[in-house]
Amino acid sequence: MSESLGLCPPGKMESSEQQQLCVFGTGDLGRSLGQRLLQTGFKVVYGSRRPDSCGPLPYGAQVRSHMEAAQAARLVFICVHRENYSFLESLASQLTGKVLVDVSNNRKKGLYPEANAEFLQRMLPGSYVIKCFNTLSSWSLQNGPSDACRQVHLCGNNADAKQAVAEVATKLGFIVLDRGSLSAAGELEDFPLQLFPEWRLPLRVALSLITFFFFYLLSRDVIFAYVTQGTDISFRIMVSLANKVFPIVALIMLALCYLPGVMAAFLQLHRGTKYSRFPDWLDRWMLCRKQLGLVALALAFLHVLYTLIIPIRYYVRYRIGQSIIKQIQENQTAKFDTTLAWRSDSYYSMGILGFAFFVLLGISSLPSVSNALSWREFHFIQSKLGYLTLFLCTLHTYLYGWDRFLKPTTYKWNTPPGYLLCLVVPTVVLLLRLLILLPCLDRTLTRIRQGWERSQSDEQKTLLA
Amino acid sequence: MSESLGLCPPGKMESSEQQQLCVFGTGDLGRSLGQRLLQTGFKVVYGSRRPDSCGPLPYGAQVRSHMEAAQAARLVFICVHRENYSFLESLASQLTGKVLVDVSNNRKKGLYPEANAEFLQRMLPGSYVIKCFNTLSSWSLQNGPSDACRQVHLCGNNADAKQAVAEVATKLGFIVLDRGSLSAAGELEDFPLQLFPEWRLPLRVALSLITFFFFYLLSRDVIFAYVTQGTDISFRIMVSLANKVFPIVALIMLALCYLPGVMAAFLQLHRGTKYSRFPDWLDRWMLCRKQLGLVALALAFLHVLYTLIIPIRYYVRYRIGQSIIKQIQENQTAKFDTTLAWRSDSYYSMGILGFAFFVLLGISSLPSVSNALSWREFHFIQSKLGYLTLFLCTLHTYLYGWDRFLKPTTYKWNTPPGYLLCLVVPTVVLLLRLLILLPCLDRTLTRIRQGWERSQSDEQKTLLA
Amino acid sequence: MSESLGLCPPGKMESSEQQQLCVFGTGDLGRSLGQRLLQTGFKVVYGSRRPDSCGPLPYGAQVRSHMEAAQAARLVFICVHRENYSFLESLASQLTGKVLVDVSNNRKKGLYPEANAEFLQRMLPGSYVIKCFNTLSSWSLQNGPSDACRQVHLCGNNADAKQAVAEVATKLGFIVLDRGSLSAAGELEDFPLQLFPEWRLPLRVALSLITFFFFYLLSRDVIFAYVTQGTDISFRIMVSLANKVFPIVALIMLALCYLPGVMAAFLQLHRGTKYSRFPDWLDRWMLCRKQLGLVALALAFLHVLYTLIIPIRYYVRYRIGQSIIKQIQENQTAKFDTTLAWRSDSYYSMGILGFAFFVLLGISSLPSVSNALSWREFHFIQSKLGYLTLFLCTLHTYLYGWDRFLKPTTYKWNTPPGYLLCLVVPTVVLLLRLLILLPCLDRTLTRIRQGWERSQSDEQKTLLA
Repeated sequence: MSESLGLCPPGKMESSEQQQLCVFGTGDLGRSLGQRLLQTGFKVVYGSRRPDSCGPLPYGAQVRSHMEAAQAARLVFICVHRENYSFLESLASQLTGKVLVDVSNNRKKGLYPEANAEFLQRMLPGSYVIKCFNTLSSWSLQNGPSDACRQVHLCGNNADAKQAVAEVATKLGFIVLDRGSLSAAGELEDFPLQLFPEWRLPLRVALSLITFFFFYLLSRDVIFAYVTQGTDISFRIMVSLANKVFPIVALIMLALCYLPGVMAAFLQLHRGTKYSRFPDWLDRWMLCRKQLGLVALALAFLHVLYTLIIPIRYYVRYRIGQSIIKQIQENQTAKFDTTLAWRSDSYYSMGILGFAFFVLLGISSLPSVSNALSWREFHFIQSKLGYLTLFLCTLHTYLYGWDRFLKPTTYKWNTPPGYLLCLVVPTVVLLLRLLILLPCLDRTLTRIRQGWERSQSDEQKTLLA
Repeated sequence: MSESLGLCPPGKMESSEQQQLCVFGTGDLGRSLGQRLLQTGFKVVYGSRRPDSCGPLPYGAQVRSHMEAAQAARLVFICVHRENYSFLESLASQLTGKVLVDVSNNRKKGLYPEANAEFLQRMLPGSYVIKCFNTLSSWSLQNGPSDACRQVHLCGNNADAKQAVAEVATKLGFIVLDRGSLSAAGELEDFPLQLFPEWRLPLRVALSLITFFFFYLLSRDVIFAYVTQGTDISFRIMVSLANKVFPIVALIMLALCYLPGVMAAFLQLHRGTKYSRFPDWLDRWMLCRKQLGLVALALAFLHVLYTLIIPIRYYVRYRIGQSIIKQIQENQTAKFDTTLAWRSDSYYSMGILGFAFFVLLGISSLPSVSNALSWREFHFIQSKLGYLTLFLCTLHTYLYGWDRFLKPTTYKWNTPPGYLLCLVVPTVVLLLRLLILLPCLDRTLTRIRQGWERSQSDEQKTLLA
Repeated sequence: MSESLGLCPPGKMESSEQQQLCVFGTGDLGRSLGQRLLQTGFKVVYGSRRPDSCGPLPYGAQVRSHMEAAQAARLVFICVHRENYSFLESLASQLTGKVLVDVSNNRKKGLYPEANAEFLQRMLPGSYVIKCFNTLSSWSLQNGPSDACRQVHLCGNNADAKQAVAEVATKLGFIVLDRGSLSAAGELEDFPLQLFPEWRLPLRVALSLITFFFFYLLSRDVIFAYVTQGTDISFRIMVSLANKVFPIVALIMLALCYLPGVMAAFLQLHRGTKYSRFPDWLDRWMLCRKQLGLVALALAFLHVLYTLIIPIRYYVRYRIGQSIIKQIQENQTAKFDTTLAWRSDSYYSMGILGFAFFVLLGISSLPSVSNALSWREFHFIQSKLGYLTLFLCTLHTYLYGWDRFLKPTTYKWNTPPGYLLCLVVPTVVLLLRLLILLPCLDRTLTRIRQGWERSQSDEQKTLLA
């Protein structure tokens, strides 16, 4: 340490008040960034083609020709669209040895084969190009860190240039994340364009299932009653029907989280190795398990709320009142049915426990919580507690059904009730999972997952780590 | 890399067991820090005015005169109040080239124009002053990282000095955050003094609204009944009244989250630019939108719980029983009202959906979740889903009111009912928002937000980024 | 900055496509890591004892003898069990000046006195040993960052070697956390082996209390009724009994969070100093307060759900119906009891408020939330709001009991009811806490916590920071 401490005279480091920065581009990005830099105490020089008529700029900024501006600072912020980079070529000699901060974004993904920053670096090989600040919103560039814009992602090939840009970003109040070499620039440029890419498939699955079950149950419950008995019970759509559709889809989607896992296990058992890649569709499915589970949790949450408001519904109160009045008028009180009490209480109890574990799974998938867990702990929660949750929720549904499936009146228009349909996938998943727990399969699978292959040389036996 | 790898002989780096550190100050801070340093394996030398009578120190620590102690180590921890810095000036030559870690805090904000660490650096220009460890609680300094004290914020002008302090902090188990140059010291010194500064305004708004509506509804509901009919229904305060006040304030505060946004939009439309600053009050309002929303969510959560316990309340059970008994005694059963069933079910359904989206908004504002979102995603959730939430909750309230506002008995003492009052702000916000969606306004606003100004030069048209 | 910028020719840095890395060990770890490195664009050379027969390796990897492989790269990943390190000694000269990344883990804690990485560094003093990647799951090593495996912890004695490994990890997509010198290796090697160590004690306490109260209440409620009246009310186990056990244990555990705090305060008052260590059991207890509280919150959450489903239970509906029918048949309507209404509503209201504050405490203990708080804010929430929560929940329980404890029928088999038992600890904690608030005790305690000691020299008075 002592050697390098000598390099810069102690306590005499350039303070931020004196550091001069250059901004190319007087458009929105350039002005927003410049305004923030000025507010933080930097000196800002804008480079402009026509310095005398470049429109209003932040108060306190200077304007120069591109050439003069480039010479005035060691850090140059390039706030210009990629299509307009060409003028920079003529400034190559002024920009040699300078740090160029590429702030640009594209309007769509995949417009160019090469990232903007890499293109710029190739064009100006004598400069140090750093990709930075492009993941921020214009509002944050102008006003400083805010919710989704606290972190600044930065990449580039030169460590000192990165350090210099990181210093500026830190002074602006951002937390800097180093993303490695300039080859990461493409990823950074795509980041601001994305809108929940990994949530699309799960949401699409949820919407399809909800639509299907809504119309299925609408015809069985509401339309059937209207056609056969002529009664209008359409008001049931708002709560009763919703409270059937949501739990059905929630349970199916929870099972869909665990289905690819057991499928992968059987595929590995069949192939006898874990090193060959899964088919693409299985890979994609496995990558969105977390999102599938969280959508299922949201639907389960709705199911809980819809269930809990049951007793304050006008319809329910009316019916209970009517049934009591009927009992009195007919002078015959219903007998207490202990089996029914056991069943209904167990049904609620399983549902509550299942939901509580489901919430626990949800909490453990919050980024800050999962980061604090070792993978063994995370695996324990997501796998062991996950299957427990699936089991409890499936049992909850079985208890709901009980012996109802035996009664012929259940099969209106010869269709099975919704709860029977939704039990198929979870039951299959649980059975397959039980199958894997058989000692013979379990042992082989464990060995495969530790790297064993059905036909392999014996070096591994000595050096397997 | 290869060049620098040669600097320090490999594998021979001083291990922490041998590194000697110096602590100035034998007060609470100095002793707590020293105890932790000793436990972690460092050697600690205290500097004291009277080494022979300085009171009990952590077991294993040495005590020397200030001069001797300063010479014994490269890192000196200054655990002394700013008022007592003066004795350090006499040690200037011993401290030259040393890293001084300023751990001090002040008792109040704004006591001094200059941060303690900057003052120290100016006093000892030959030393490398680093501000660090001051954001930790005394407990964490003594016992290591705990909940709010896992991160250590550090700033200073010399990178190597920072690195040396960061190494020590890392060995003590903390996560180090570099906050840039010493000019950030003031901010770090204010950090431990703050107590939810950004929550004060929202909480004050919430408390004022709660107080107002509590007394307003108390007079309308409880006192009115007592004065006009002489009946004492004061027991309603605990649940019925609370369950009116909380949702009313929650809805108003949710609307207050979105009001400054539409106001800012109209201001930008009026001014024709986004670069002039908003008035101060609007700025402050916009900066606490998140807190306003979270307080509203907390109140909405209370509303949900208060609503769900309705059917187990003694009063409610009593009333339902009485109404059934009355029906029987009068031998006239109430007819089922399909419209009422539709309305009440829709009312609950909208409330549940609104609350569910509200919870989603709340989850997305957790720091670790919002950090993982791109700003486009964050904007989508907070703006699109936010307005959907506001719409659903407002609709929920309209359905609650229904045609009640037509009945003269509603206007006790000629005052409007609470739910009517609370609909004003959300309705205004939603209407203004709809107005902005008109194509002509929407187009202009989008252009303004992309940097366009009503009177601007044409350079932007070429170089806008 | 400018000096160092000259070191490496700008824009000519080795791109990741050309960097060659060496992996020792062709077992699971070695192959998983190599596959990921190849996918990310690195060249990978495996070192093997028998390069011609070492079994299938990732597509694109080269195989060489250990010696040749070691010479081909500057970074060597050691994916070999510690037991097989011996062969590395013969390669000492080839490995001199190289960066060795130790990825190994042990099967159990405490197998060896020295961490694997430290052992390796001692064996090869001429190499730069870095501990890294061992905290990742095999799946993440093969497929890149996933939930609990986004962060890579890294430690080592040489900053440049660390930097080189951090670059590789960053390119693989991980977030790198520097954990200091190689002496942290032992901690990193233990990390993947741990399974919620700090949750064990709280969970064990919870399970013991749940078991005790389950059987206690089972005999009082169910068995007593069976023995004395011969009625079978065993169905009550599922909901009624659960809804007594959960809140009882939740309240006791919440109080157990605050008990060690007041005990520590009295201990400090007794000893007159805060610098002597607490007894071991108290230390351990204090360190798991957060987990105690979160388990209590989970149980309180179950209590809320169990309470809210009460009105939709078959048993409850049956009983309410019967009581109405009985009233009619006996032609005597119950009179409305205002005191009962006040009491029951207050009871629910306190419960709701207590639960809401409890949820707030839970949210503030999420890592990302507590990191964003200053310790003063965290302390305020956990201490002030914590005691408020405890007070509200205790009051809720007292209101539940009311005058029930006066009736002799409550003491079945001469045992006190569960709610009375569970009030003991919280009442004691609240009373002790009130005692500490007495001015004389409070003043002394504050001084002790600021570092004052009953018998101390006077240096502190001048230099206390």
